[in-house]
Amino acid sequence: MHGYQHLFVPGPTNVPEPVRQAMNIPMEDMRAPDFGGFVDGVLTDIKKVFRLENGRVFIFPSSGTGAWESAITNTLDTGDRVLMSRFGQFSLLWAEMATRLGLDVDLCDTDWGNPVPVADYAERLKADTSHQIKAVFATHNETATGVTSDIAAIRKALDEAGHPALLFVDGVSSIGSIEFEMEKWGVDLAVAGSQKGFMLPAGLGFLGVSDKALEASKTASMPRSYFSFEDMIALNDTGYFPYTPATQLLRGLRVSLDMLLEAGMESTWARHARLAQGTRAAVAAWKGCDLVARDPASYSDTVSAIYAPEGVDAREVISTAYYKYQTSLGSGLNILAGRAFRIGHIGSMNAVMLCGAISAAEMALRDCGAEVEPGSGLAAASEQFRASTPDARQGQSKAA
Amino acid sequence: MHGYQHLFVPGPTNVPEPVRQAMNIPMEDMRAPDFGGFVDGVLTDIKKVFRLENGRVFIFPSSGTGAWESAITNTLDTGDRVLMSRFGQFSLLWAEMATRLGLDVDLCDTDWGNPVPVADYAERLKADTSHQIKAVFATHNETATGVTSDIAAIRKALDEAGHPALLFVDGVSSIGSIEFEMEKWGVDLAVAGSQKGFMLPAGLGFLGVSDKALEASKTASMPRSYFSFEDMIALNDTGYFPYTPATQLLRGLRVSLDMLLEAGMESTWARHARLAQGTRAAVAAWKGCDLVARDPASYSDTVSAIYAPEGVDAREVISTAYYKYQTSLGSGLNILAGRAFRIGHIGSMNAVMLCGAISAAEMALRDCGAEVEPGSGLAAASEQFRASTPDARQGQSKAA
Amino acid sequence: MHGYQHLFVPGPTNVPEPVRQAMNIPMEDMRAPDFGGFVDGVLTDIKKVFRLENGRVFIFPSSGTGAWESAITNTLDTGDRVLMSRFGQFSLLWAEMATRLGLDVDLCDTDWGNPVPVADYAERLKADTSHQIKAVFATHNETATGVTSDIAAIRKALDEAGHPALLFVDGVSSIGSIEFEMEKWGVDLAVAGSQKGFMLPAGLGFLGVSDKALEASKTASMPRSYFSFEDMIALNDTGYFPYTPATQLLRGLRVSLDMLLEAGMESTWARHARLAQGTRAAVAAWKGCDLVARDPASYSDTVSAIYAPEGVDAREVISTAYYKYQTSLGSGLNILAGRAFRIGHIGSMNAVMLCGAISAAEMALRDCGAEVEPGSGLAAASEQFRASTPDARQGQSKAA
Amino acid sequence: MHGYQHLFVPGPTNVPEPVRQAMNIPMEDMRAPDFGGFVDGVLTDIKKVFRLENGRVFIFPSSGTGAWESAITNTLDTGDRVLMSRFGQFSLLWAEMATRLGLDVDLCDTDWGNPVPVADYAERLKADTSHQIKAVFATHNETATGVTSDIAAIRKALDEAGHPALLFVDGVSSIGSIEFEMEKWGVDLAVAGSQKGFMLPAGLGFLGVSDKALEASKTASMPRSYFSFEDMIALNDTGYFPYTPATQLLRGLRVSLDMLLEAGMESTWARHARLAQGTRAAVAAWKGCDLVARDPASYSDTVSAIYAPEGVDAREVISTAYYKYQTSLGSGLNILAGRAFRIGHIGSMNAVMLCGAISAAEMALRDCGAEVEPGSGLAAASEQFRASTPDARQGQSKAA
Repeated sequence: MHGYQHLFVPGPTNVPEPVRQAMNIPMEDMRAPDFGGFVDGVLTDIKKVFRLENGRVFIFPSSGTGAWESAITNTLDTGDRVLMSRFGQFSLLWAEMATRLGLDVDLCDTDWGNPVPVADYAERLKADTSHQIKAVFATHNETATGVTSDIAAIRKALDEAGHPALLFVDGVSSIGSIEFEMEKWGVDLAVAGSQKGFMLPAGLGFLGVSDKALEASKTASMPRSYFSFEDMIALNDTGYFPYTPATQLLRGLRVSLDMLLEAGMESTWARHARLAQGTRAAVAAWKGCDLVARDPASYSDTVSAIYAPEGVDAREVISTAYYKYQTSLGSGLNILAGRAFRIGHIGSMNAVMLCGAISAAEMALRDCGAEVEPGSGLAAASEQFRASTPDARQGQSKAA
Repeated sequence: MHGYQHLFVPGPTNVPEPVRQAMNIPMEDMRAPDFGGFVDGVLTDIKKVFRLENGRVFIFPSSGTGAWESAITNTLDTGDRVLMSRFGQFSLLWAEMATRLGLDVDLCDTDWGNPVPVADYAERLKADTSHQIKAVFATHNETATGVTSDIAAIRKALDEAGHPALLFVDGVSSIGSIEFEMEKWGVDLAVAGSQKGFMLPAGLGFLGVSDKALEASKTASMPRSYFSFEDMIALNDTGYFPYTPATQLLRGLRVSLDMLLEAGMESTWARHARLAQGTRAAVAAWKGCDLVARDPASYSDTVSAIYAPEGVDAREVISTAYYKYQTSLGSGLNILAGRAFRIGHIGSMNAVMLCGAISAAEMALRDCGAEVEPGSGLAAASEQFRASTPDARQGQSKAA
Repeated sequence: MHGYQHLFVPGPTNVPEPVRQAMNIPMEDMRAPDFGGFVDGVLTDIKKVFRLENGRVFIFPSSGTGAWESAITNTLDTGDRVLMSRFGQFSLLWAEMATRLGLDVDLCDTDWGNPVPVADYAERLKADTSHQIKAVFATHNETATGVTSDIAAIRKALDEAGHPALLFVDGVSSIGSIEFEMEKWGVDLAVAGSQKGFMLPAGLGFLGVSDKALEASKTASMPRSYFSFEDMIALNDTGYFPYTPATQLLRGLRVSLDMLLEAGMESTWARHARLAQGTRAAVAAWKGCDLVARDPASYSDTVSAIYAPEGVDAREVISTAYYKYQTSLGSGLNILAGRAFRIGHIGSMNAVMLCGAISAAEMALRDCGAEVEPGSGLAAASEQFRASTPDARQGQSKAA
Repeated sequence: MHGYQHLFVPGPTNVPEPVRQAMNIPMEDMRAPDFGGFVDGVLTDIKKVFRLENGRVFIFPSSGTGAWESAITNTLDTGDRVLMSRFGQFSLLWAEMATRLGLDVDLCDTDWGNPVPVADYAERLKADTSHQIKAVFATHNETATGVTSDIAAIRKALDEAGHPALLFVDGVSSIGSIEFEMEKWGVDLAVAGSQKGFMLPAGLGFLGVSDKALEASKTASMPRSYFSFEDMIALNDTGYFPYTPATQLLRGLRVSLDMLLEAGMESTWARHARLAQGTRAAVAAWKGCDLVARDPASYSDTVSAIYAPEGVDAREVISTAYYKYQTSLGSGLNILAGRAFRIGHIGSMNAVMLCGAISAAEMALRDCGAEVEPGSGLAAASEQFRASTPDARQGQSKAA
């Protein structure tokens, strides 16, 4: 196979060259006397990406799923009642984990394609005057459906109900890519992973923890060891880790943080918005295709889940894109299998890459019998991109 | 700083160039249709390194500590009695984890410098006629003291007592480096990590599981999710993982397994033995220095823990080696802090690298006031190396 | 800047990942006893890419320009008459070099956009009954105009004239990419460079030399040293080089040769033809644009030079593509500056990459005032690509 | 083979990790609008390593041998008389090239092991009152014998004779490593290569040219093209090159220059002196061994050529080091073949690496029958290294 293998899954995302270079290293002693200073800097700067002033961000050698578990086992007790909503594969899996770990899960589901049903949440919180609900969970960006939920509104619902529950947010496919304000929104536990907006290989789970959640962890009684806050806090305070950290990824993370912070989070969010708009323009132009996300207000700027036209098997589209066009599109998960495919526009991405994704999807759709007009998606997307892409000659920072 | 930063900690170990090359890659779709075939091959071949015919090896995105936890939570019940022995930092930490996770730990400690007290284990197992002990834990290679325990003898003790307890082995710094026979020795749960004998960066925890342990996992009731066998089995059987795997490390692992299996495990074990002997010859020649390990029968072939001469602070030796000679020696952990330093001779290592380690340690020792004779360690080691190092011209495989 | 920097200049071309991995190495001793065996293999296999049975291929640490010089200084004498044709920037530069090096250059120019005027060559050769012409030069693929000349026809002209002149061919942007048959076409000196069809960074000049040319070199009297055949032959015969070779590039070349030969040259040529056809379909669909190449029979399968529409400055198009769309298009050189831009479809390239190139060019053209229809190029190209791209599921080799 | 392949040839030298990282890149357009700015910076900074205020440094895609040729063909005329001295393989090869290129070489040879015979040069220059000698050549550091010549003294001889000849210096294994002052010493043409003190792979030839030499090039009449100053000046002045530059190496060179200039040249020279002293201490301690260099005043700080003891074949020592100890020592060249081996202590090197080299050489010597005392070389060297190596804790810059 020649040329790039094109990657448009919503994670792992494309790794920027400076990050790739930074990971091309020999191993090092994670107990070296100057390693602690390096770790300090990373721990300080990752908080800026979470937009967290107080509290901490923990870095686990795990996937984001591990950080989900850490959030639960460190702050809740077995049998605690929690409010959750399932509206896609990842919110569904998180609820499954909560159940396994012994929580009493109060489900507030909605159709796939919708965001967290904030009004329902608000109602239940208001009704819960005895504060049986210990935690409220929300999947910020449901990667399976391309839907972004309104976390600020959930905070507002909690506040208006005067409810003390902890607010858990799955930000795996949002943090570092689209607007996320951990401190401002009063999020207590925010989960992220290295292989999405942080533009690294998979292997690090990130967990933002508010002071309130840190306080809760002191009395929470679930058994935990690997993902325990306690050891992590003790060692992180000296600049080290309780077990061998993934130093190669940490060196990559250093560069990834530099790139994100140098550009500024707002600039990164704006870039994702531009790229998403172009992609959605293509979808709108494709005859018979439609976004899984129902309401423009909750369209995700990191991933678009797209229904294939009636009679076209989305699995075939994905397989054709892969085997014929060397292009990885995201699968339709669970009930969307066969019905939808996804285009990830997250991470280190640019307009011309997405023109390639749109072209590949269009060719594969046509190969599979869809009656989309040749060039129709690209025509719509490219006019969007032309209008929105900054020109580096016009004083626009190249770093953005 | 110029030239190599010399790395002689007992993990992370030096990464061979072919493994480093294999990890220098763009990201890929871990749901790609041909990814499963790749995973199948890795899962099959890693069993050969564990010397496991039946059962499974799980690969977790975690450190080895995560695999410790997985072994416990999947096969035991809260309150189960387990037999453990503490004789170094890592056996101590494992016992601490067992306690935290709610096991009833029966400690059978011995002095640091000794291996697992097999005779004591045998006695307790014989005495436990009602089979209250559900599992026996052994740290195969105690990385803190450079001591290797006799796992086959523990199996014999279990068998002679007709005891059905599961046998848990921490093989983090032994598997892939020194003799380890999971199937033959009847080990039920064997823990390893990517950053030791597998010559990879940290980030993967490996867990070998016997059929007996797999059976036990079906009824074991501890809460578990991230490290659960169940999901891993279901997905591994299709060639995939329950959450985003660390594909970069898996690509490196593929090459590492190829290197290990091409050379043959026996050849790898023999190489470690040769390099360890040379290193120990140097220690013997250093006036005032001594191995922490007491009995030659339990000298570790992957790491030597070395007492600094009376009056010499081993921390100073390590710091001098680092800051003056760009050489990372292993620290003295816990009660050995200040008293001992360590030389790792594990992984992708050769005689001349160890000549460098010995030279650096000797210079740092002298800088810190030790009265070791200049060149004395190297003189002893080099004669050992001369006698034992194979000559690639004499039909010796270069792969070894 | 995020995402790929898209590279569509006709060299340096995109480096395949396996080649990039192979160059990520420490330095090595180029006098090591087993280095010679490695060099032997490379020298043998590169001949297969040149399609040369007899003779030799020399590898110089230089650009292709150095190989041009080597061809001249080793086989001709000062004052020798040579037949050359200028029809683009690179044929022009070669003629300039020939003049500087003291040859008597008989020019047989034609308009840029045409190939070597074979009929004129034939006429002059027939007329040269006293064989004053010592060498005939032809630029196989004129990279500036995207025109491929008919080398077999020139050989035929020489043969029909019974003319003994040496046949020099600049194959820098053809060898390894489009049909080239050094032995069959009776080419005596064939120049190539690492950064085109060989998919490596710049830094190696390749020179294929027939037995006849080797014979000529024994008496040729121009001063030469660095590019002398004599030393190179003497050392190559032992597997080494007369001066320090670029070992990093040689290790990359080893993998590049493996990729080319495993796929087969015919398969590589066919791939370039498919990609070129798609690109040309886009050009044909762009209102106001036209290929610089005039005759479909001489359209180049490695690069298309494209006239921008009247009133559109091609330099602006290129600059916009670069600064706004992170896409490097080829410049219009010399008299084509401002009038044309180029799309390289050479080397490690695939259809979706070219969809990106076409999209970027289209957006940049529109930004600069061209009235090309949005999506028009992509629509035409994508239907071509759909029809011609092999599907790896249909038993098509992925290596192709 | 496991662990590092130890490289102690006097070039190619070990590549520092940051340089290796910088070369791990995709290809780029060498005509990109911002490439020129990058080139400008490189061309400016490389002059600082040559210690050149005026004049220029040219960067050729070639080995250092190419820069030798460029120096000659651009500034001299066929038949010009030049003063040269042969006292090692590289001074010999340069004289051979001068002859081939048509110069009238006045040889002033001396035994291998001596430096340029400055007194003889002075005499001939004084005697040459008609200024027939157009150029004086000196090999600053004869890599074959480990001898450094006194360039300042040659300048003095020229000045005292009031002689206008150009001063050519081969600084391939000196510039960037040991004291070299192009401007202060009045050197007119100074040759260097990427694979020595610049710590890069082979592939770039550097040529420092004084204003006087630039002036000479305007009238010099030798045929030249690839290595011509004229085109290089014209293009360099715009930030580009007359033919495709080796962009990968240029990106590495950028980092290499940063490392050299950040540390400061004096610091780099001092580091080489320290490492050389330690190595020479080992040689002095080896029974039966001796340096090829005769006079301590001309001992080279970049390479030591070492006579093996009587009766020991140095080729066997080198081969044993390579095949048994994975260590590349430098060969004895020409008349030194079989009699001497070399240890390069040039480039990105440190004391512990040299301890490895000394150990490997000692073991190989003993394997081949030499009666050197085990550990004797290391004992002597290590005491030197202990005394001279800076401790990064004592406010010593780690960059040095």
